[in-house]
Amino acid sequence: MKKKITFVIVNRANYGRIKDLLIKFKKDKYFKIDIVIVSSSTLKKYGEIENIIKQDGLSVSEKIYTHIEGENLQTMTKSTGLLLLELSTTFQKLNPDMVFLVGDRYEVLSAAIAANYMNIFLIHLQGGELTGSVDENVRHAVTKLSHLHLVNTKRSKKIVEQMGENPKNVFNVGCPSIDLIKNTDFKKVKIKQPFGVGFEINFQKPYYVFLVHPVTTDYKNSEKLISEMIEVAKKLENQIIWLWPNVDAGANIFSKKIRSFRERFASKINFVINFKTDEYLKILQNCTAIVGNSSSAIREASYMGVKAINIGDRQILRERGNNVIDAPVNHKKIIKCIEKIKRRKISKCKIYGDGNSIKKIIKILKNVDLDINKKFYVR
Amino acid sequence: MKKKITFVIVNRANYGRIKDLLIKFKKDKYFKIDIVIVSSSTLKKYGEIENIIKQDGLSVSEKIYTHIEGENLQTMTKSTGLLLLELSTTFQKLNPDMVFLVGDRYEVLSAAIAANYMNIFLIHLQGGELTGSVDENVRHAVTKLSHLHLVNTKRSKKIVEQMGENPKNVFNVGCPSIDLIKNTDFKKVKIKQPFGVGFEINFQKPYYVFLVHPVTTDYKNSEKLISEMIEVAKKLENQIIWLWPNVDAGANIFSKKIRSFRERFASKINFVINFKTDEYLKILQNCTAIVGNSSSAIREASYMGVKAINIGDRQILRERGNNVIDAPVNHKKIIKCIEKIKRRKISKCKIYGDGNSIKKIIKILKNVDLDINKKFYVR
Amino acid sequence: MKKKITFVIVNRANYGRIKDLLIKFKKDKYFKIDIVIVSSSTLKKYGEIENIIKQDGLSVSEKIYTHIEGENLQTMTKSTGLLLLELSTTFQKLNPDMVFLVGDRYEVLSAAIAANYMNIFLIHLQGGELTGSVDENVRHAVTKLSHLHLVNTKRSKKIVEQMGENPKNVFNVGCPSIDLIKNTDFKKVKIKQPFGVGFEINFQKPYYVFLVHPVTTDYKNSEKLISEMIEVAKKLENQIIWLWPNVDAGANIFSKKIRSFRERFASKINFVINFKTDEYLKILQNCTAIVGNSSSAIREASYMGVKAINIGDRQILRERGNNVIDAPVNHKKIIKCIEKIKRRKISKCKIYGDGNSIKKIIKILKNVDLDINKKFYVR
Amino acid sequence: MKKKITFVIVNRANYGRIKDLLIKFKKDKYFKIDIVIVSSSTLKKYGEIENIIKQDGLSVSEKIYTHIEGENLQTMTKSTGLLLLELSTTFQKLNPDMVFLVGDRYEVLSAAIAANYMNIFLIHLQGGELTGSVDENVRHAVTKLSHLHLVNTKRSKKIVEQMGENPKNVFNVGCPSIDLIKNTDFKKVKIKQPFGVGFEINFQKPYYVFLVHPVTTDYKNSEKLISEMIEVAKKLENQIIWLWPNVDAGANIFSKKIRSFRERFASKINFVINFKTDEYLKILQNCTAIVGNSSSAIREASYMGVKAINIGDRQILRERGNNVIDAPVNHKKIIKCIEKIKRRKISKCKIYGDGNSIKKIIKILKNVDLDINKKFYVR
Repeated sequence: MKKKITFVIVNRANYGRIKDLLIKFKKDKYFKIDIVIVSSSTLKKYGEIENIIKQDGLSVSEKIYTHIEGENLQTMTKSTGLLLLELSTTFQKLNPDMVFLVGDRYEVLSAAIAANYMNIFLIHLQGGELTGSVDENVRHAVTKLSHLHLVNTKRSKKIVEQMGENPKNVFNVGCPSIDLIKNTDFKKVKIKQPFGVGFEINFQKPYYVFLVHPVTTDYKNSEKLISEMIEVAKKLENQIIWLWPNVDAGANIFSKKIRSFRERFASKINFVINFKTDEYLKILQNCTAIVGNSSSAIREASYMGVKAINIGDRQILRERGNNVIDAPVNHKKIIKCIEKIKRRKISKCKIYGDGNSIKKIIKILKNVDLDINKKFYVR
Repeated sequence: MKKKITFVIVNRANYGRIKDLLIKFKKDKYFKIDIVIVSSSTLKKYGEIENIIKQDGLSVSEKIYTHIEGENLQTMTKSTGLLLLELSTTFQKLNPDMVFLVGDRYEVLSAAIAANYMNIFLIHLQGGELTGSVDENVRHAVTKLSHLHLVNTKRSKKIVEQMGENPKNVFNVGCPSIDLIKNTDFKKVKIKQPFGVGFEINFQKPYYVFLVHPVTTDYKNSEKLISEMIEVAKKLENQIIWLWPNVDAGANIFSKKIRSFRERFASKINFVINFKTDEYLKILQNCTAIVGNSSSAIREASYMGVKAINIGDRQILRERGNNVIDAPVNHKKIIKCIEKIKRRKISKCKIYGDGNSIKKIIKILKNVDLDINKKFYVR
Repeated sequence: MKKKITFVIVNRANYGRIKDLLIKFKKDKYFKIDIVIVSSSTLKKYGEIENIIKQDGLSVSEKIYTHIEGENLQTMTKSTGLLLLELSTTFQKLNPDMVFLVGDRYEVLSAAIAANYMNIFLIHLQGGELTGSVDENVRHAVTKLSHLHLVNTKRSKKIVEQMGENPKNVFNVGCPSIDLIKNTDFKKVKIKQPFGVGFEINFQKPYYVFLVHPVTTDYKNSEKLISEMIEVAKKLENQIIWLWPNVDAGANIFSKKIRSFRERFASKINFVINFKTDEYLKILQNCTAIVGNSSSAIREASYMGVKAINIGDRQILRERGNNVIDAPVNHKKIIKCIEKIKRRKISKCKIYGDGNSIKKIIKILKNVDLDINKKFYVR
Repeated sequence: MKKKITFVIVNRANYGRIKDLLIKFKKDKYFKIDIVIVSSSTLKKYGEIENIIKQDGLSVSEKIYTHIEGENLQTMTKSTGLLLLELSTTFQKLNPDMVFLVGDRYEVLSAAIAANYMNIFLIHLQGGELTGSVDENVRHAVTKLSHLHLVNTKRSKKIVEQMGENPKNVFNVGCPSIDLIKNTDFKKVKIKQPFGVGFEINFQKPYYVFLVHPVTTDYKNSEKLISEMIEVAKKLENQIIWLWPNVDAGANIFSKKIRSFRERFASKINFVINFKTDEYLKILQNCTAIVGNSSSAIREASYMGVKAINIGDRQILRERGNNVIDAPVNHKKIIKCIEKIKRRKISKCKIYGDGNSIKKIIKILKNVDLDINKKFYVR
């Protein structure tokens, strides 16, 4: 009998990361997969993920609306509770042998609790990563609720084991998003224009990618962060592709500021709500540098050899290659760092995987013992 | 300005453990406390905790009904989601400087998420304990969401620190329930009779205390567990005080079996839904042995020098004194262990504290830096 | 293509009433039915309805746990909200052409809102009945949200029409429970003994049936009601079969009182949590009288020619035959009424239908125009 | 002791209508008022109502986030359930003697259920109005749950009474929004410029007001409606002030279309998310005509003598003066109607009140008997 795996997708980044993994799982006779999209991945304004999933030859088993408007810490918490309430019904019905979760978004903890409390074997991809932001709390709590850990780096394996997980349940498989890069023939990826809103990018000329997310615990600093980014945008001479942030507490302020800014200074900036994953990677590959606080500026960019400016504390502890320079939340300093990275010689590196992650994961899951009893591994 | 602390009480055991702590906090000018009772602590059938709290001179700020009937893993999960939804409202309104949580019940994780996501400084009492049951997952996940750890044993301190918490935020204060024992003049505690339902206990003669909880992840084994306990009850010659279990997934089977058993064999057993804490401790102090899988058979009993039979895996890894003998879920073997412990010489021990826990906690909380940014402490 | 009808069952009485209707619908090729059980119908303590449904050759499409413990007006309201939240997911998934609801329980209003707001054609059975209790509010609100009204009496038709519903959407079909009585061969219905808890009934001797529900808005009066009933029970000489009440606000007080009473005076009373419908009807058919405030004492009993004492205001305005005598909430007066009805000659009557209800309903639903736009019919 | 009244405000229109009523109630020693804002009234994008309330000298007792994103019928239903869940907590805590509700928005039914189920005396303003849209269902269901009806027109009184309400509980008080108009010195109301987004209005020249809401049950027609309105906007020569619609199912399509339109044709249109009430009325008073499907085009405009084009079925049955012309959802016909109304001589009328509504309401509420038992009034 096929093993049933339910993948809970919380946002477009989540989906992008495991898209190829899902396609491979779907083709494998050993497994039956269910894709459940929740929270911001159900919302049109954050990208029609359901359509993208269908275009990729996959299907959505459940679409759960749980995003309570308000964009503050209370509604973020409330949405998490509502999702937990709903997932108890979903998991009961889908009755999976395993639940598969990715990353550290606040909604992931809901899914982890639902699986753990309902005695479903829980697999977590991307445990053990240190970033320096409070999202880490979620990541590590999910680790303590998970039964199998598919980590992406050597350091992550150590961290997960330090937390008391049994080493035999922790596998450093690398990140499936690296497979995606490795397997993409970027020549074939066409960026249809016009995309986004505002200025139309000329790909013959240099451009930056901006991708900056609000800082969850630091509500007021989110405002400063976006303001400084806007200053950077004003001062840079080149074109900018600015990607829309996650739907987090704080996102409202971001949207408002960006929207107001966009209406006044749209002369060189293109604002994009979402790309398909391969489009995003192609955009990334060819940019002068990516500026912001997204993890992809460190993970994917390190493998691709793309220059990156990492702003603020959100990713401060994340492992990285020499493609990254850290900048404080200050537009003058950010611009200096941009100048500096432009001059730096950088190299590609494989901290986050060598592009064979998916193969490894499938092999592990075919042989895993679905034992939900785990003991703390005292060191 | 006073520091506001919100204590979330999930059941009567929770309250019993920190009752004196709450009274001390209430009297201290430095603090303003709010007591929020949730889940089974709101239900009459698990004891009128609200009244008990009032009789103790305290008051309930919020009473949140979130217990969805069904007594299975799905409703347990759903109740957790509902509680999270509700606590987001409660914490917004009470606006505490700190939230204080105890133990590892499934509802505690809701409260931990609410506090953590809403950027409220989170204090966890009883982190780091290893028991061998799956409730440990909850406990450790709460640790990863908490900012200050008040642990009860030396080993717990090591475990919390191993998980990456900064040692300066981990304090071994011992368990406040030991203070309670130390400070109670048991001569003054009167047990009013009749209590409970069924046979009236003669305190001049020997009696056992039975306290057995369902095993959350092992739904079917819960049935076996209660059946074997009933066999033990039938075969033991002495009187028995049998305390009602927690309202967990699996509790329904327990209640049904106990109720049916009660109606047929009530000749030597008294069934009690709940005692006040000091009554329970007095009952415990004078019993021949406590039989079951409750933590109090190990924690409180070790300090009091009360003999205990610990059945099954629920507490298998818990630190204990020589007052405890472990027995498998088998009535014949349980009875043998009872015979064995009756002959054993045992001693009191202070693993779980020396009775000065409350004083230590208050001192720590007066001086704590309410910093919600925490970094993983790599070892 | 088959028309999909979703039936939402809120409790065992609900199911009992439409059991045969469901079986007929299931056999009809024109329809595809889904049965959704919610609230108290999911709980073991109110009868294993899921099993009964299976034994009847039907199946449950969804089982939704929404009953929040507490048994007070707040938890009743909260449960209603939770049910609405859940049904939005259920209706989205089942995607019915019609939703079919019965009666006036508080949960029915949730289902009515979900159907109405989601543009699903809504059929309501038993609209327009006047009882004198506040449950009427729910019934009439459901009428105003429904698109097709299957009423059970002539007066009900008038009432629904008076409320502004278009007469062409209001059909007096009688109650399907009368079909059930008409089509049951009571000689073949065997009552297996022992049933219930307590005294074993001797069917060779006379017995009463007691069935009394708490009064929702009159929380304190519920206590008086159950106390007076207990007095009646003590004073009556004959045997009594006492049926457990609904899981309403106030039910806890009832249970507590009944349980305590049961343990002391169980010498002639048998307490039953639930019968199968045909067993209940047979018990009813042969009793000396039914005493309480249940609608079945008026509806079914009138058709069967069973004597009934109707206590208090809960059914005070309900249409009835000469088989019913009303009594106030006073045990002495209730006993007098019991004596009086015993002497009265009564006749069967067909106010609530002639036993051909199901046939009529199926015909109507086959021809109905699924138009969700309705206009107030001004008179 | 003061009578406690809780007012539940669901959106800015709700608040605008009863603003002066609230201020009068607040000043009256007989009452203590609580204002609870829910749903779209908590969201910044629909206007900072909380701030407006404060500026009006009032305060918000509770702010309940319940709006689940998705803008479809399922999320609308889910939001209603979530609101019911939350209001059970709010009403328990505020413990009002009366709850006061306005109108027929889908959230109002949640508040009505919460009050009715929790035995709180329920007052409904604006019952009995016929509009021809499905929102009527909500309005009439709320009537059947309410204990006191403050209706706004003679016909409404008849309709509420027809539905079985006791005439002694139905008062035609007129609409408090008419008091607002009567008592406003429009010369003193200053419209600060710039307001809104886009073109700056020249008040020396003629302008139209556009206000069009999506049609709840007619999801697809909402798209047509907004498209036709955009065509009208393109073709009209004068300036337009376009007000943002309600946050209903369908609102997303509206926003998207308007936003896309706005970015291309912003040369004569000003888009406004929200005005303060008096500003809105002044804008209305001086416009050439109001075009759309808002009730205010019929209610307020009739009293003010403002010309109005009412589009589609949403208000088709609403009582109106000769200031209104109905148009189908077709831009050519709408433009013809606009031409027609411009030439028509119209008169002010008092169908919706004479401006003394608030005084009447306060008098009624001071003398009301808070009896929650109501009997259907058979005609």
